[in-house]
Amino acid sequence: MTKEFFRVTHLEQVFTYIQQFARVETEVVPLSETVARILAADIISDVDLPDFRRATMDGFAVQGSSTYGASESNPAYLTVTGTISMGQSPDYAIGPGEAARIATGGMLPQGADSVVMIEHTEAIDDSTIEAYRSVAPGQNIIEIGEDFTKNKRILACGTKIRPQESGLLAAFGKQTVEVYKRPVIGIISTGDEIVDTTAKPGPGQIRDINSFTLSAMVNLSGGIPITFGIVKDDFQSLFKKCSQALDRCDMILVSGGSSVGTRDFTIEVISAFAKAEILVHGISISPGKPTILAKVKNKAFWGLPGHVVSAMVVYSRVVSPFIDHVAGISAPQQKKTGLRARLSRNVPSAQGRVDYIRVRLSQKEGNRWAEPILGKSGLLNTMIKADGLVEIGLNLEGLDKGAEVEVIPF
Amino acid sequence: MTKEFFRVTHLEQVFTYIQQFARVETEVVPLSETVARILAADIISDVDLPDFRRATMDGFAVQGSSTYGASESNPAYLTVTGTISMGQSPDYAIGPGEAARIATGGMLPQGADSVVMIEHTEAIDDSTIEAYRSVAPGQNIIEIGEDFTKNKRILACGTKIRPQESGLLAAFGKQTVEVYKRPVIGIISTGDEIVDTTAKPGPGQIRDINSFTLSAMVNLSGGIPITFGIVKDDFQSLFKKCSQALDRCDMILVSGGSSVGTRDFTIEVISAFAKAEILVHGISISPGKPTILAKVKNKAFWGLPGHVVSAMVVYSRVVSPFIDHVAGISAPQQKKTGLRARLSRNVPSAQGRVDYIRVRLSQKEGNRWAEPILGKSGLLNTMIKADGLVEIGLNLEGLDKGAEVEVIPF
Repeated sequence: MTKEFFRVTHLEQVFTYIQQFARVETEVVPLSETVARILAADIISDVDLPDFRRATMDGFAVQGSSTYGASESNPAYLTVTGTISMGQSPDYAIGPGEAARIATGGMLPQGADSVVMIEHTEAIDDSTIEAYRSVAPGQNIIEIGEDFTKNKRILACGTKIRPQESGLLAAFGKQTVEVYKRPVIGIISTGDEIVDTTAKPGPGQIRDINSFTLSAMVNLSGGIPITFGIVKDDFQSLFKKCSQALDRCDMILVSGGSSVGTRDFTIEVISAFAKAEILVHGISISPGKPTILAKVKNKAFWGLPGHVVSAMVVYSRVVSPFIDHVAGISAPQQKKTGLRARLSRNVPSAQGRVDYIRVRLSQKEGNRWAEPILGKSGLLNTMIKADGLVEIGLNLEGLDKGAEVEVIPF
Repeated sequence: MTKEFFRVTHLEQVFTYIQQFARVETEVVPLSETVARILAADIISDVDLPDFRRATMDGFAVQGSSTYGASESNPAYLTVTGTISMGQSPDYAIGPGEAARIATGGMLPQGADSVVMIEHTEAIDDSTIEAYRSVAPGQNIIEIGEDFTKNKRILACGTKIRPQESGLLAAFGKQTVEVYKRPVIGIISTGDEIVDTTAKPGPGQIRDINSFTLSAMVNLSGGIPITFGIVKDDFQSLFKKCSQALDRCDMILVSGGSSVGTRDFTIEVISAFAKAEILVHGISISPGKPTILAKVKNKAFWGLPGHVVSAMVVYSRVVSPFIDHVAGISAPQQKKTGLRARLSRNVPSAQGRVDYIRVRLSQKEGNRWAEPILGKSGLLNTMIKADGLVEIGLNLEGLDKGAEVEVIPF
């Protein structure tokens, strides 16, 4: 056992390697299965939306000029010539002084250019109303093409489909959509002390946790996790398992075995693959320093720390943007958009590395507070108690009580 | 067509009805399928974790007292008696002045009470090291039961399982876990102007969008959406469809048909069910005012606005906590934890209602800005451009440019 020093890489440098990895292939899925998928092609409008002039209020379709000058004391009198049925094209036109009953979403008749809201009218008799306010042409209606015009890009390739994008695809009648495949992520746990969750651990042994936490995180990232089980600290077994995983997966996560002090089989195994390239061996973050990133068979191959908390932090802060890129998301990046809170106590940190501390959120005196979670960093209970992470920058010696911080969900 | 006034209900009042609805039943799922599910029973620790004293650093297991007073200029000399293998119970004890090589996660031998980090040692010969720092008993180790003690509640019923909870269940070897079933949510679109997405809309018609946006939102909420298609504005058809949906689902979302101005079939249909109770007819929010909440066959039955943007806002701000409750989440509530930003311009609002405006996030001069999205509220493009919603409270007449706001993801 000898001292070993990492050539640690800064995070920004790590992220420059993202573009070295190819995106997954594409597939065509039905509209109903598009949510949270990534568009693999631009979507172009093939019609104007709406393609008819539509009321946005319940009321009366009119020519705006028929109402000019109308007020409570001096209403405009309008003749009601009919009622517009929903989903029908009106077969009559509106002339000056005329009005047709219309509901929100109804199609304006020829001649009408605006809608007087029902709240601003009063029925005088079956065929006459008073209007108490004037409306300008275009008021309370949506014009043809006002929402989206024909032959324009309405959604860009690389967009993650939210419910609203799914709705837009429905509005344009897209039955099927070309999306990127969900990236398949291979997960391998290593360590002589690790036993399957089905086993009762003997003295000095612990159950395999990383297979479950990493699978869950991959699922939440939109990937498909495949677990390859536990490999003992043995070159041949690990090489064989990694080979299998590389054949089936778009990216590999090996946890454990890369710590200073144990023999570093992960590096040996990576080096045994033809044309393998170790891009990163050690990152200036804590926890997570001993992380490895390599390019093996043109795929990203990660050596993650064996400790579950460290592996989770590295996944969340480092691996995740790589998965987003491979998954097809345009401009993937470290998610920096956390909840703002005040730190409830001083937190020290070492300069020259980015620290991630676990915090719990609470409300007190109208402020949101981030309470650093006490206890040794190796304890699982610290991640159960945590609502999120706070990042302490490379050049800071810590943060003071009361400092404004962003809490990254965790 | 007559004016109709809603007895509008305030949001806090709406949420008091949550407890009227029963939770879904439970089921047992394998550990690998627990992520994002809701625990249906407390989880109790059946062992101490860890159940052996474990090193948290690479170094040497020692009796702390052997190192007292050690410094760079006055190191402690220790005799190395062996190396601890990972996953093995050491078969020898450590006495005063002795040390055993140990890696992170290794089991401490009898007699040892702490670990000297390898960085604070230097090898003198094969069996002797110098230690340059003293360690106190308990330092760089985790004690038995320090993480979790036996027979304690480690996770509470009603907890949503994140990757870390999944990992904790793995650590305790829980092969299967009792969780609440995913609630089944029935979705019905109504309106004479609505046609299926497979159809080419005629004049005055639009494609069914709500079935897709609401299904997507239900999916993201952890529910199982079932769509029942489009029903024309006709009492018999809607009653029949709602009957079918109530038989199969835990909650019903009917969109459209509840606007002022069209004949209100949703209310008529609800009233036709035995013992149906209309709890809310109109909420003091915008958009979303004409929302209906009823209790039919002991299930929550929602009448949502027909316009997709309004329906999405109501789902996100009003329906979602009801789904969380039915899904088994303890203390479900409106998600108020948004990203803090500054408003880029003045926004007016009416007193007496809660307004939700769509905003886009941007970074400028080191600040995060929320830009209100311009354009008529009925336009779909406003929801595509939006990153989130900003709430303007019941008693405010608006918000000023520069105001600190919370942006609720949307």
